[in-house]
Amino acid sequence: MAEKPIRIAVDAMGGDFAPYEVVKGAVQAARLYGVGIQLVGLPDVVERELATHDTHGLSVEVVPATEVIEMGEAPAIALRKKKNASIIVTAKCVARGESQAMVAAGSTGAAMAAALFNMGRVDGVERPAIGVTLPSLGHPCLLIDGGANVDCVPEMLLQFARMGSVFMQNVYNIPQPRVGILTIGEEAGKGNAFVNAAYKLLENDSSINFIGNVEGRDMFLGRVEVTVCDGFTGNVALKSAEGVAKMLKTLLKEEFTSSMTSKALALLVKPILSRVMNRVDSEEFGGALLLGIKGLCVITHGGSKAKGIQNSIRVAKEAIETDVLGKIGSRMAEGSGVAT
Amino acid sequence: MAEKPIRIAVDAMGGDFAPYEVVKGAVQAARLYGVGIQLVGLPDVVERELATHDTHGLSVEVVPATEVIEMGEAPAIALRKKKNASIIVTAKCVARGESQAMVAAGSTGAAMAAALFNMGRVDGVERPAIGVTLPSLGHPCLLIDGGANVDCVPEMLLQFARMGSVFMQNVYNIPQPRVGILTIGEEAGKGNAFVNAAYKLLENDSSINFIGNVEGRDMFLGRVEVTVCDGFTGNVALKSAEGVAKMLKTLLKEEFTSSMTSKALALLVKPILSRVMNRVDSEEFGGALLLGIKGLCVITHGGSKAKGIQNSIRVAKEAIETDVLGKIGSRMAEGSGVAT
Repeated sequence: MAEKPIRIAVDAMGGDFAPYEVVKGAVQAARLYGVGIQLVGLPDVVERELATHDTHGLSVEVVPATEVIEMGEAPAIALRKKKNASIIVTAKCVARGESQAMVAAGSTGAAMAAALFNMGRVDGVERPAIGVTLPSLGHPCLLIDGGANVDCVPEMLLQFARMGSVFMQNVYNIPQPRVGILTIGEEAGKGNAFVNAAYKLLENDSSINFIGNVEGRDMFLGRVEVTVCDGFTGNVALKSAEGVAKMLKTLLKEEFTSSMTSKALALLVKPILSRVMNRVDSEEFGGALLLGIKGLCVITHGGSKAKGIQNSIRVAKEAIETDVLGKIGSRMAEGSGVAT
Repeated sequence: MAEKPIRIAVDAMGGDFAPYEVVKGAVQAARLYGVGIQLVGLPDVVERELATHDTHGLSVEVVPATEVIEMGEAPAIALRKKKNASIIVTAKCVARGESQAMVAAGSTGAAMAAALFNMGRVDGVERPAIGVTLPSLGHPCLLIDGGANVDCVPEMLLQFARMGSVFMQNVYNIPQPRVGILTIGEEAGKGNAFVNAAYKLLENDSSINFIGNVEGRDMFLGRVEVTVCDGFTGNVALKSAEGVAKMLKTLLKEEFTSSMTSKALALLVKPILSRVMNRVDSEEFGGALLLGIKGLCVITHGGSKAKGIQNSIRVAKEAIETDVLGKIGSRMAEGSGVAT
């Protein structure tokens, strides 16, 4: 357990259902996990929303911001124009030490830029990356990079592997997380020149449990706990997987509402189907981590409801309690493998 | 309808369940679709298998081959060593004009090499590619390249787009198939330099219905009918999607067998779940096409059962009837857009 009380800054204006779902999820998390919350946003709006909840005995504070970055805006330009945007103020709450982590729904690009600019990079990390926890038949699998760095050099994959291993060891209690490189076949040499160069680097790092090349399916079948790749490949893999899950959900819904009989059956099997679908629901997983930033930053889907916000706050809390950030810092300081 | 009777050469020795499932699927297809079949393989083995089926009134002929290429073998080396391998003899049946298409389960690399060497490339095509028909909420979506070319130049994506469009127009009756480039965001400019260069080429080709960039999820949600990408990206997307589908299938099975009650419910909803799962079953889709080869070549999953073989033969038959090959030839001859 961390010594000082845990506090988490939440961008109350981010995501498709802000502030309603964000405030709701934050209040739920404050009660369930006993954490303090800084809700950042337009004060009138956030306070009005907060007033609809019972916050008796909870530590929920509103931190004012005067602007909001919308989903469509280009992060770099928006951040320069809107210096008092809620996502920037949220990052500053962590940078100033008022909170130990930030949680934001919506534009990952804006969150990454705001966090990086205000908190800085971990020493020894070339470029921060997005780590996404995927559901799997075994332990969850952390896919890193989920989309922050379209182009990578092989050394970055080694850094991702190290940061990802520390994260899975601490937050998911996996002593020796298996690390694989995402490519098109399991044999060494399967892939492109970039993959093969990264393979050599990972193979020679005794601090990680490198199992070699993995394929997209391995991530979901419990065969690997940390999958590293460039942000382009990772993002394509993520969204393809998301698409299939969504298609299946839609098809099940169609079939179960197609007749009176199937509707009746649907009622009977609903608990079973819900359990399965919850396993692949991104909101249950509590979002993505920005790894390599000198501050904890959890990002959730722009479409997150209260449950997604609440789970992201839970992940942030667990990361704080297990001092993931401190451990990543020590690990990366030991040697980054990067020519600078 | 094609004038002369349709005949399809099938590698009876390919795949994890050869020759049992292959012969079974071929005989089923011969009966269901009224096509002639050349079953290629070790004559003793194939004839013994064939004798267990009623082939009365069917045109099923055994073509002898003396060797078999195993799944683990490197295609290039295996093909050089085993000149009378079943996959080579199968390709030769098409090259000699005895059959109008070939169907093979198992090593895609070996099939691609055998087909390319014996049938040659379509004029104007830089490199043949693997087109995989994906299930989707709308029309199916052809993903091309599914893994033949790890590294591509942008011009190849234009060729894939043209070949894929002709295929979907003819075999799936979609007059104006929507073509997208697989990348990490829908806006133009989202992706790497390769994607952006390909975007410019596709944008300027009036013969295709280019809708811009697409994400992995769009392929499964009915938003695009031809998705082009390099073989590395395509293969990762495919296998990630496959992994999620398999995970969900396993989770459903676990949940529905976890108690007596859930087992009873499983019996009731089995028809509904089967309908949904069949929609995402690769065997129902009848496999992948090698596009850009001067001959029709359908490849199915190494783990295909009789149903998969049968459906691949159906796809081959439809491609023959609609003269996909002739149409791709004409389209590519009109201008390949490739600097040679």
